[in-house]
Amino acid sequence: VLLTDFGLRDSYAASIKGVILSLFPRAVIVDLSHEVEPQNLFQAAFLLEATYPYFPAGSVFVTVVDPGVGSERRILAARTPHGIFLAPDNGILAGVLAKEKQFELRVVTNRKFFLPSVSHTFHGRDCFAPVAARLAKNPSLFSRLGPPVHKFTRLHFASPHEEGGRVFGEILYFDHFGNAFANISKDSMRGIRKKGGTQVRVKGKRIGVIRNSYYQGRKGEAIAVFSSSNLLEIAVNQGSAREKLKLREGVPVEVF
Amino acid sequence: VLLTDFGLRDSYAASIKGVILSLFPRAVIVDLSHEVEPQNLFQAAFLLEATYPYFPAGSVFVTVVDPGVGSERRILAARTPHGIFLAPDNGILAGVLAKEKQFELRVVTNRKFFLPSVSHTFHGRDCFAPVAARLAKNPSLFSRLGPPVHKFTRLHFASPHEEGGRVFGEILYFDHFGNAFANISKDSMRGIRKKGGTQVRVKGKRIGVIRNSYYQGRKGEAIAVFSSSNLLEIAVNQGSAREKLKLREGVPVEVF
Amino acid sequence: VLLTDFGLRDSYAASIKGVILSLFPRAVIVDLSHEVEPQNLFQAAFLLEATYPYFPAGSVFVTVVDPGVGSERRILAARTPHGIFLAPDNGILAGVLAKEKQFELRVVTNRKFFLPSVSHTFHGRDCFAPVAARLAKNPSLFSRLGPPVHKFTRLHFASPHEEGGRVFGEILYFDHFGNAFANISKDSMRGIRKKGGTQVRVKGKRIGVIRNSYYQGRKGEAIAVFSSSNLLEIAVNQGSAREKLKLREGVPVEVF
Repeated sequence: VLLTDFGLRDSYAASIKGVILSLFPRAVIVDLSHEVEPQNLFQAAFLLEATYPYFPAGSVFVTVVDPGVGSERRILAARTPHGIFLAPDNGILAGVLAKEKQFELRVVTNRKFFLPSVSHTFHGRDCFAPVAARLAKNPSLFSRLGPPVHKFTRLHFASPHEEGGRVFGEILYFDHFGNAFANISKDSMRGIRKKGGTQVRVKGKRIGVIRNSYYQGRKGEAIAVFSSSNLLEIAVNQGSAREKLKLREGVPVEVF
Repeated sequence: VLLTDFGLRDSYAASIKGVILSLFPRAVIVDLSHEVEPQNLFQAAFLLEATYPYFPAGSVFVTVVDPGVGSERRILAARTPHGIFLAPDNGILAGVLAKEKQFELRVVTNRKFFLPSVSHTFHGRDCFAPVAARLAKNPSLFSRLGPPVHKFTRLHFASPHEEGGRVFGEILYFDHFGNAFANISKDSMRGIRKKGGTQVRVKGKRIGVIRNSYYQGRKGEAIAVFSSSNLLEIAVNQGSAREKLKLREGVPVEVF
Repeated sequence: VLLTDFGLRDSYAASIKGVILSLFPRAVIVDLSHEVEPQNLFQAAFLLEATYPYFPAGSVFVTVVDPGVGSERRILAARTPHGIFLAPDNGILAGVLAKEKQFELRVVTNRKFFLPSVSHTFHGRDCFAPVAARLAKNPSLFSRLGPPVHKFTRLHFASPHEEGGRVFGEILYFDHFGNAFANISKDSMRGIRKKGGTQVRVKGKRIGVIRNSYYQGRKGEAIAVFSSSNLLEIAVNQGSAREKLKLREGVPVEVF
């Protein structure tokens, strides 16, 4: 399962697939996304965390959003009950590893698993792809990737906080429909039970109670729902919340 | 075969693939397109109708362009000699069902075929994907999807009409080259046989006789051809008809 | 392995895949790219040459960037130790055939290998796809595609030249990060060895010595590196060289 910021216009994603199929011709390769904004670690972490649970157990997830390529940054491999995760040690795996309590973490240092010649600028093709192919073919190689480690880089996602029966958070991500996702999960709202439903305010503007689905808003109306990944989502029925409410990442969201 | 308006930037299409592969690891998944304009049912219907005949008989086609997700709109499953088609009952299947005279139609109500937990906002992942995977694995489950139905929603595509030996139609669709497709098929022109070739007029402007292929126009010249899906197509040799002729959907096209 | 300018919004790429899977259900299909700029033969040739070596030997490469579709232009098939390459005879294969010294070249004329009905506007679906599927299934059919030929169309890529210990070239391609690739390979610089490192000048502006990787520039600094395909690359650490230096194809690059 490939997640990168390489886009689909160039041949970077294809090179990775070519290398994987060269080493493991029966591999099933799925694109999680190649359209992460260039070097946007937060987006990559967000998409990976929301999506990995829907893939078959035993999948190998390869995330290459890698501003530090060619530097001394490490390559991490994590094995969890759900699968194996490969990524630069730049925080991308933090969300997954917070969810997957049980995991074994190693630094990938065994150069025998890389292509014979490793470029300075494209470790996706020269390191990540061959390691992923070998692991997909034979997961027991995991223990030979390199030494175990315990520390890894974390990303600092803004956390929601509760105060006086209210939860304060912010917008994390927009999808291509213009739906906005806040850092407020169903769980983080457990303490809040209001008569008449929980209210949402975005950028100081009242959106109304949390509904069940988009169609419960009138066409063009802004509404709040819980998204399919259990985060608070601001949407406009058959429109773009991002445009209609002029939102951007970091805009404050309040639940009360 | 997946057709959605989910785009490739977010992880929606990937989640669908993950669910399918979890239930049917040997599935072969092909993207028809994920770049339908958000909630543009006409585009989805147009692309599906033009493309499905080229896929292997027995394919399962999953179309999720679904402004009514979470509402009471039904999920339809149609079985034809060519394959199985899943879609919301919003008109998307109308073109296919007009072509495929023989079909069996059911409403998908059997919740055992869905994921254990169904969100209100992402039936593509929670309903369509697991149903598609189970049908691809075992097509005989079709009869257990839900009760048979006969009525379904139709989309009202503008129809061409003939008058005095002329056919009047309009532009339906543009491809990414800027080629324009009208709702005038080869069949709908059967009555018209002109000495010196059939003429085409677009937006009141004469384009000339229908040619065989793009290269028969000079570079930059607007010409009319029959497209690979047998519709009248306005093209510019090595250019964009949409831009050059300032066309948009609904622009009148006349054949005489 | 598919390389086209069809984009992913329309269903052209999907039709090709449908035809391939209809004839060879076990085919593994990989997109090299469908986002070549419409009819940009240079881009297609560049991407193919940079990427094909990473695919398994025996792969069938199908390149459909085909402004002459429907004209008398020929369809070429080349067999090399690395695989089989199909393309219109418009120069796209020139780079590959310059690298792959050993090859057998044929014109594809055997209509039995095409779909029964061949449109004038979509040979990708009606000719290339069925030929590719049959060759992937049974490579020995190569000799039955049509007569051998020796001449083929070449693209005239600008060549670098050396003068007085300097190499003069130009920008060929930008990737979606905004990295710029010049027509100066590591090989073409063999004669140049400078104390203190080789210097690079772009658009008359000094960029500094060639470094090993992006991160060796400060954030936002323009640097020169050798790309993963061994071409001189102008990059901006965590930014776009194309935008920052206001580059475009053809801009002069000098190494000294």
